[in-house]
Amino acid sequence: MALDSSTKPHERLSAYLADDLNAVNRLITERMASEHAPRIPEVTRHLVEAGGKRLRPMLTLAAARLCGYEGSYHINLASTVEFIHTATLLHDDVVDESAQRRGRPTANLLWDNKSSVLVGDYLFSRAFQLMVETGNLRVLDILSNASATIAEGEVLQLTAAQDLRTDEAIYLQVIRGKTAALFSAATEVGGVIAGADEARVRALFTYGDALGVSFQIVDDLLDYGGVSEQTGKNVGDDFREGKLTLPVIKAVARADDEERAFWARVIEKRKQEDGDLEHALGLLRKHGTLEETRREALAWSAKAKAAAAELPEHEIRDMMIDIADYVVERIS
Amino acid sequence: MALDSSTKPHERLSAYLADDLNAVNRLITERMASEHAPRIPEVTRHLVEAGGKRLRPMLTLAAARLCGYEGSYHINLASTVEFIHTATLLHDDVVDESAQRRGRPTANLLWDNKSSVLVGDYLFSRAFQLMVETGNLRVLDILSNASATIAEGEVLQLTAAQDLRTDEAIYLQVIRGKTAALFSAATEVGGVIAGADEARVRALFTYGDALGVSFQIVDDLLDYGGVSEQTGKNVGDDFREGKLTLPVIKAVARADDEERAFWARVIEKRKQEDGDLEHALGLLRKHGTLEETRREALAWSAKAKAAAAELPEHEIRDMMIDIADYVVERIS
Repeated sequence: MALDSSTKPHERLSAYLADDLNAVNRLITERMASEHAPRIPEVTRHLVEAGGKRLRPMLTLAAARLCGYEGSYHINLASTVEFIHTATLLHDDVVDESAQRRGRPTANLLWDNKSSVLVGDYLFSRAFQLMVETGNLRVLDILSNASATIAEGEVLQLTAAQDLRTDEAIYLQVIRGKTAALFSAATEVGGVIAGADEARVRALFTYGDALGVSFQIVDDLLDYGGVSEQTGKNVGDDFREGKLTLPVIKAVARADDEERAFWARVIEKRKQEDGDLEHALGLLRKHGTLEETRREALAWSAKAKAAAAELPEHEIRDMMIDIADYVVERIS
Repeated sequence: MALDSSTKPHERLSAYLADDLNAVNRLITERMASEHAPRIPEVTRHLVEAGGKRLRPMLTLAAARLCGYEGSYHINLASTVEFIHTATLLHDDVVDESAQRRGRPTANLLWDNKSSVLVGDYLFSRAFQLMVETGNLRVLDILSNASATIAEGEVLQLTAAQDLRTDEAIYLQVIRGKTAALFSAATEVGGVIAGADEARVRALFTYGDALGVSFQIVDDLLDYGGVSEQTGKNVGDDFREGKLTLPVIKAVARADDEERAFWARVIEKRKQEDGDLEHALGLLRKHGTLEETRREALAWSAKAKAAAAELPEHEIRDMMIDIADYVVERIS
């Protein structure tokens, strides 16, 4: 890969960490094997090899290297993070009854829900084994707490996403759970395994948290404004699923009675008709909530960059800052 | 509870460990709470309070006390074991599309599959947090390995249970995964947390493993011969689901061409007609496989008792031996 200035920052970081990432890929392949149940590597390979950016494990590797780590447990922890992420995707697709992920049919469609549930459980257990091998109780504490936050956020979303009373604070809890908790755990454990001091660990946590929140807000915003080819998802998916996200939450807060009745019908009752998406987009524009959501994503990205700025000078730090810019580039 | 000789041994053990079990129940209630997602305690309570025997957590408490443990981490570990068990039940009911569990409607029926999948994930994470709190890396190793064995066994069952090539060795792998792995981890970690010597830890592991295998074989046997009220499940459930268990595996191994065609139709193709269950029962009797399965359950129970006999003399040890007898009493 030619690393000119047009190369995306996560690609530059990926090239910088190539040896570590190869070690992660080897460990993942080794640990997703199952002597007895060939269904496990089949399903896992489908997802793991689907061309995800490996952003989360890369954050762990980056944090560890940035803090001068010379051991090999960062490979375990990065693989742990990717396994937790993969397990979550498998279960999410069952819960959302999704048919597509990263432009390919989902595992629940190719095999069945049973395989997705149980292979997800297997990957959670494998993640757990990988982190136990580090023998570091603090990283175990961080990652077990992150797992609980992820699951709690997902359950919260089940009830909150269809409830017009859901406010911005609840939305933030949901996206911390579904996205930011794993980002912040990924960066934090990288620092902890490297024995970094508390200020650095804290900055790494804050960077991951703010990056994750920004990332999810952008994703939710693009669902109302992105281009299908660009995002790998169709515009209006969240709307059609009746899922409340930030642009709508802000519009509901400013809705008059008629608008509120509209949102209640399409989100709470999920009774949608032709033209509803266009009407919804009109309301989001009328109240300026797409622009406001965009500004919030930019603010979280700025927070991530400020946290990264507290880290020691390092090529990796600069790429982390660029990644925080890149996450919001699609909406800038 | 009057503890006369007619009291069941697990009830006597429960009475003996009453203080510890109360502490476990308090910890479970505390940890199944969720500040943000009330759906979590609702679903969990439905299962946890459904009147299970708490056999698995009791085994951890028993093993720890038998080995002279005076600390409090056995409460964490027993709660861990119960949370892993509860999470597994939630996911199993989704996978099996079950409508009843312990004589009550299942969570997937009362709420939905989504809640069962995600609340199960939450309980797995909570289990993980509880064990990390003990700070004992060896119990973390044992329980993470057990979790992987459980999930692997469940995935193996997905493909093996409908495949007539499944032999007794594969059956044993499946039931080790779905049942015995948690029993043996439960007893083993009780010994480990108490700092017991290797011979005792080994005997505790073997007791739990053999008890679990015996328990599952009895369960599978009763599905072809038990009484509905007694077992809480309908006779022939496994048959109707086309699930290969030991009595059928043994009958398939001795089937002539015509019998093999019958099994292929009802198990592999799941094309069942009126009278098929009766015909199947006739074949199991003809080849004597119910009796043979019964003898295997008894042999595993004897193995459990032999392992318990290696443990130091103690009231708890005697109750553990009685429990191994009780598990096979329903088929004796």
